[in-house]
Amino acid sequence: MNIAVAQSGGPTCAINASLVGVFRQALKTPEIDTVFGSINGIEGIINDDLIILNAAITSNEDMELLRQTPSTILGSCRYKLPDSAVDEEVYKKIISTFDKHRIKKFIYIGGNDSMDTVVKLSKYLEKLGREDICVIGVPKTIDNDLCVTDHTPGFGSAAKYVAASVQEIIRDSRVYSIESVTIIEIMGRHAGWLTASTCMLRANGEIAPHLIYLPEGKFSVKQFVEDVRCQQAKHQAVIVAVSEGVTIDPEEVDLSEFQSGATDAFGHTYLSGIGKCLEKIIAKEISCKVRSIELNVMQRCSSHICSKTDIDEAEEIGAKGVVAAMKGHSGKMMYYKRLSSQPYVITIEEIDASEVANKEKMFPEKWINDAGNNVSDEALKYFLPLIQGEVDIFMRNGMPLHFMLK
Amino acid sequence: MNIAVAQSGGPTCAINASLVGVFRQALKTPEIDTVFGSINGIEGIINDDLIILNAAITSNEDMELLRQTPSTILGSCRYKLPDSAVDEEVYKKIISTFDKHRIKKFIYIGGNDSMDTVVKLSKYLEKLGREDICVIGVPKTIDNDLCVTDHTPGFGSAAKYVAASVQEIIRDSRVYSIESVTIIEIMGRHAGWLTASTCMLRANGEIAPHLIYLPEGKFSVKQFVEDVRCQQAKHQAVIVAVSEGVTIDPEEVDLSEFQSGATDAFGHTYLSGIGKCLEKIIAKEISCKVRSIELNVMQRCSSHICSKTDIDEAEEIGAKGVVAAMKGHSGKMMYYKRLSSQPYVITIEEIDASEVANKEKMFPEKWINDAGNNVSDEALKYFLPLIQGEVDIFMRNGMPLHFMLK
Repeated sequence: MNIAVAQSGGPTCAINASLVGVFRQALKTPEIDTVFGSINGIEGIINDDLIILNAAITSNEDMELLRQTPSTILGSCRYKLPDSAVDEEVYKKIISTFDKHRIKKFIYIGGNDSMDTVVKLSKYLEKLGREDICVIGVPKTIDNDLCVTDHTPGFGSAAKYVAASVQEIIRDSRVYSIESVTIIEIMGRHAGWLTASTCMLRANGEIAPHLIYLPEGKFSVKQFVEDVRCQQAKHQAVIVAVSEGVTIDPEEVDLSEFQSGATDAFGHTYLSGIGKCLEKIIAKEISCKVRSIELNVMQRCSSHICSKTDIDEAEEIGAKGVVAAMKGHSGKMMYYKRLSSQPYVITIEEIDASEVANKEKMFPEKWINDAGNNVSDEALKYFLPLIQGEVDIFMRNGMPLHFMLK
Repeated sequence: MNIAVAQSGGPTCAINASLVGVFRQALKTPEIDTVFGSINGIEGIINDDLIILNAAITSNEDMELLRQTPSTILGSCRYKLPDSAVDEEVYKKIISTFDKHRIKKFIYIGGNDSMDTVVKLSKYLEKLGREDICVIGVPKTIDNDLCVTDHTPGFGSAAKYVAASVQEIIRDSRVYSIESVTIIEIMGRHAGWLTASTCMLRANGEIAPHLIYLPEGKFSVKQFVEDVRCQQAKHQAVIVAVSEGVTIDPEEVDLSEFQSGATDAFGHTYLSGIGKCLEKIIAKEISCKVRSIELNVMQRCSSHICSKTDIDEAEEIGAKGVVAAMKGHSGKMMYYKRLSSQPYVITIEEIDASEVANKEKMFPEKWINDAGNNVSDEALKYFLPLIQGEVDIFMRNGMPLHFMLK
């Protein structure tokens, strides 16, 4: 029999490591002949656009290189399967591709939207009596907002990049002998995990960011200006970390010039500009040097400073996905279960993908301070294990080397 | 006798390495008793705001850590000395501080504006017959725009960060099966060295960025849109690198909403927004996904991926500054002279600081293609040696450790 793997949703530094995990485990499984890679997520299955990974990844060195290559080597998609009762055509195409290539196991690496595909497809196969085909989800997202799992593959590397960069920006901000405010905008549409993780700098004696705002809290512009003034009394260079998803009450400030009304296929609004918006507010309200910095897509693709813990775990959860599929399980998502933080111990388990699909896990309220402008030291214990260890990056000509499909 | 060192201008990843070079060489010089650090550039000398570096940097480990700490540990300034014929007061204050602390050697680490200070101060001392006090300049700037020197300390590390990040952004841009344009805005007010250095990715087989625009060329919006369309015929995800200093003819497009009229003490205009501006132009003219990314201050402070060549050279040029001062030289700037690119060999020489002060070295016209939208492979040979080698970064709790003054 053969196996297929696909990658979906926004890129991370760890999604290719999960692909390597699937590939390596498939090679070790005598029943599996060929490993197919589906181009652009489920779209590759629908359109029979597959590549043979055994021909593309031909050595251990290839696998090591792929583990540390960011983004998705197979491409991605944001395609959402229709309800099979409404539109069965696309499901027939999928099964046609599976049957044509004797694909009996399908591993889908993605976020909560992708788990919706795992649920719908596995239910359809069950209804059809095609239990010979198993569909397993492997999680990923830098947002860390998937339910059930302790954390998500990709998050640790994003958090490590953000921590290193914010610390360097703090150094940069303390150069001149004038008062300044630096606002750093960090990814996170609805959940503030990545922004909250900047609290990790405390572990090395750095008290900034002095203010941390998450989408989970209620944000008031008036209170924000007050918070900044209060920090200025204590610090010459005030550092603010803010989630891209923090929203401003339009009753307080007219935001029309900062927001885009565009939405993707899942109805998500493209958010941007909260940092720039707060910069303009501070420039108006407080007479001091102010700047905003958007860490942008570098947060999800800066594999040159990825977390070894994250990459190793991402590979392992991919491998465990194959093991679950080989047991005949379907409609499940693999997840991390934390047994202990000190020492850090996890196991990898499986759960119904429906428990995760289309849901979001928010940053816990109990770790947000009463003022809603910082997070507690308890969060530190949760975050720190996820960024430990460095991967030996392959360098050529002074630059990181990436795996590329021939 | 004692020595003083100060840091000036915008931060880099290598300016503290030059400080370590000064400090280590001073320790090796029997005639020197104490090494003073001047807080916030020349302002610390004017206001007698000094620290004793021998008390702050107490071990080899401290020095190694400081070498890899970005920004300026002593703070910086953008203060420009007045003409001594017009205002002698500030010069008297400087000499008073020198005499009070028996400072006979002063090393000023900075850019072309800082070399203006080296020229004015050394001339004033000479006029006064105070040849017992020597002033030596040590260059630094990520812009690589200083005259005479082959390249500047700090540039190599910035170029290494930019190359790694642009490559990662390229991976990120190729994820979805739709046409896209990604515009990356890179630092460089008047000189396009850092933007041009993105051509280095070719050494590893990456042909993007497909378009490179420098402030040295004449920029036409109409031609830019044409260039992008032309690249779209060949590449699904078009990557554009553009210098922040690229300017648009206001006759072509109304830019009032993107530009800030503010200027610093040297009359430099704060430029920003060319990337965002070009993004909006593409969104309007071409119907495709488009985004702009500003690499922002991370370009000058991302020491976690600094160039070992740059850091080692920066330390050595600082040390050579002390050697020159001990020979009784004054009013000089140390510089790199390249003897060969393959193999890469440089020597460190000295020149009158007046040859460098207030001047800029542009990216050579001969390395810009005829269309003005890319650079030639010749530039590659110049750039590549500057980013070679990695520094073993001290990590604690999964994050880079920085030196902090106690």
